[in-house]
Amino acid sequence: MKALVIGAAGMVGTKLARSFGTDPVPGLDGLALVDVVAPAVPAEVTAAGIAATSGVLDLRDGAAVAAVAADRPDVIFHLAAIVSGEAEADFEKGYAVNFDGTRTLFEAIRAQPDYCPRVVFTSSIAVFGAPFPDAIPDAYHLTPLTSYGTQKAMGELLLADYSRRGFFDGVGIRLPTICIRPGRPNKAASGFFSGILREPLVGQEAVLPVEDDVRHWHASPRAAVGFLRHAMTLDTAPLGARRSLTMPGLSATVGEQIEALRRVAGDKAAGLIRRVPDATIRGIVAGWPTRFDAARATGLGFRAETSFDEIIAAHVEDELGGVIGPR
Amino acid sequence: MKALVIGAAGMVGTKLARSFGTDPVPGLDGLALVDVVAPAVPAEVTAAGIAATSGVLDLRDGAAVAAVAADRPDVIFHLAAIVSGEAEADFEKGYAVNFDGTRTLFEAIRAQPDYCPRVVFTSSIAVFGAPFPDAIPDAYHLTPLTSYGTQKAMGELLLADYSRRGFFDGVGIRLPTICIRPGRPNKAASGFFSGILREPLVGQEAVLPVEDDVRHWHASPRAAVGFLRHAMTLDTAPLGARRSLTMPGLSATVGEQIEALRRVAGDKAAGLIRRVPDATIRGIVAGWPTRFDAARATGLGFRAETSFDEIIAAHVEDELGGVIGPR
Repeated sequence: MKALVIGAAGMVGTKLARSFGTDPVPGLDGLALVDVVAPAVPAEVTAAGIAATSGVLDLRDGAAVAAVAADRPDVIFHLAAIVSGEAEADFEKGYAVNFDGTRTLFEAIRAQPDYCPRVVFTSSIAVFGAPFPDAIPDAYHLTPLTSYGTQKAMGELLLADYSRRGFFDGVGIRLPTICIRPGRPNKAASGFFSGILREPLVGQEAVLPVEDDVRHWHASPRAAVGFLRHAMTLDTAPLGARRSLTMPGLSATVGEQIEALRRVAGDKAAGLIRRVPDATIRGIVAGWPTRFDAARATGLGFRAETSFDEIIAAHVEDELGGVIGPR
Repeated sequence: MKALVIGAAGMVGTKLARSFGTDPVPGLDGLALVDVVAPAVPAEVTAAGIAATSGVLDLRDGAAVAAVAADRPDVIFHLAAIVSGEAEADFEKGYAVNFDGTRTLFEAIRAQPDYCPRVVFTSSIAVFGAPFPDAIPDAYHLTPLTSYGTQKAMGELLLADYSRRGFFDGVGIRLPTICIRPGRPNKAASGFFSGILREPLVGQEAVLPVEDDVRHWHASPRAAVGFLRHAMTLDTAPLGARRSLTMPGLSATVGEQIEALRRVAGDKAAGLIRRVPDATIRGIVAGWPTRFDAARATGLGFRAETSFDEIIAAHVEDELGGVIGPR
């Protein structure tokens, strides 16, 4: 069995690829990793005896997309996207990559005769837009408030129609906000949700631009990899024509995040959070979903963390070698 | 003020165009009617002193679409579509016209500098797919079970994003099944809902392929024209980013339709309905919505009939010159 990961140089793509080495999937012996820059092949993958290749793929290049589909991988993970901020700033590029690129991929699969791969499409809770009920049910309508969310919602519709038509066997995974996102702080409006934990865990100061009662929907990078892997082998018969699933996550306030940090890393770490209210960020975050009733995905066996203590512990284990404190 | 009607040769488009003559909209003095075949300019429009033109437009012809947008109409009614059955039979044509054609139109509008017309986009209850709750609320998700419904749902998403971006001021109108549809019987699976009234009203036999307890969601052609005209001048501020609206309609069983026919046209007319059960049609109809709670549209002033007696009366008045019985 061979898997293709599109967007394999990204944070989740990298972790997904590595997981095939550290936690092999029975029967998976080939892995093609592509992105707009050639992804590194994780040493763990090679060590596990998986034949892995790395390549460059821009979804706007129809011939190149046709070529990767012509390799007829059994599973295709489509994780590639222009992020929300850039898709909002560059209307045409966002549609060209996030929507047209997705459609080009789906069409390339459709063009292959007698071929029906599993397609795992990463969507996002950005397909939802305020106002919301207290907990957003699986049957809630998609009313994105960004072009990125619109492009993901359109991708979900195509995924369902191409699956219904039998061109492929699709599963759409609506990822929660990923927390704790490893790496350096960035300018994303959601960055502080990770920053207020990630920085203090290594003895650095972090800025909190919103009040402690701000609530959001989180899952760890480890949980995200678990979702994608579960979607790879999921029995899709129970999905019917409803191919996209809101993933389970953890609804928590900023205050609850900080209390978990205090429990895991002590008062000193929690004291490194500097409150610098920012009305703009507060305004953006106010339009985001805070809680889902992800009953369908949970019923299908998707699992996320149930406490921020767990999320922090996963980060300390996966990113910090088990050690809290200054580097 | 000038309006453009795309799809003006169709049943609803023809009636909409004529209505601008018989029931003029203050300030509307120009009307451009286009379709894949040149629509007739209704005599009533010319008589009302409206400067009307007729032209041929295929939404797959980008240059032609750009040309109609370059005329900068104040209001654009986009009613053109490949119907459900054809979009299902011809996957590529359905996407090319219903989705790409819509996007080409939206892009042509975006390309015009300092131009923000009202765009009234006709969608359909085909954006919904079973299973359903007893009454489908405004916040219910769109899970189309046809490529046509998928294309309409994608058009709704574009409509919302282009409106949010300020490229135009869009309103999406999800039409109920139109009943009584004038004209000859056709092979559409939904055809019998109209046929069991239309044919007996002129003394002809009609075939009923389903049981009397089959329930569906209806509005008259007259109501459909009313929806589109109301959308033309609606204050869109209350819509926010949620630009598409499920129209009000009448939820009725086939049995209730027949009882209304009996009240309006007598036992003899009702006796012209011949029951010929058809498992295929029954199966198709079972996946269709039966009832909506169209609270949003109702709150915004959209109105439909509240009884089948009214729907039949509108048909007798508009199509039969007020006279029931054999022609």
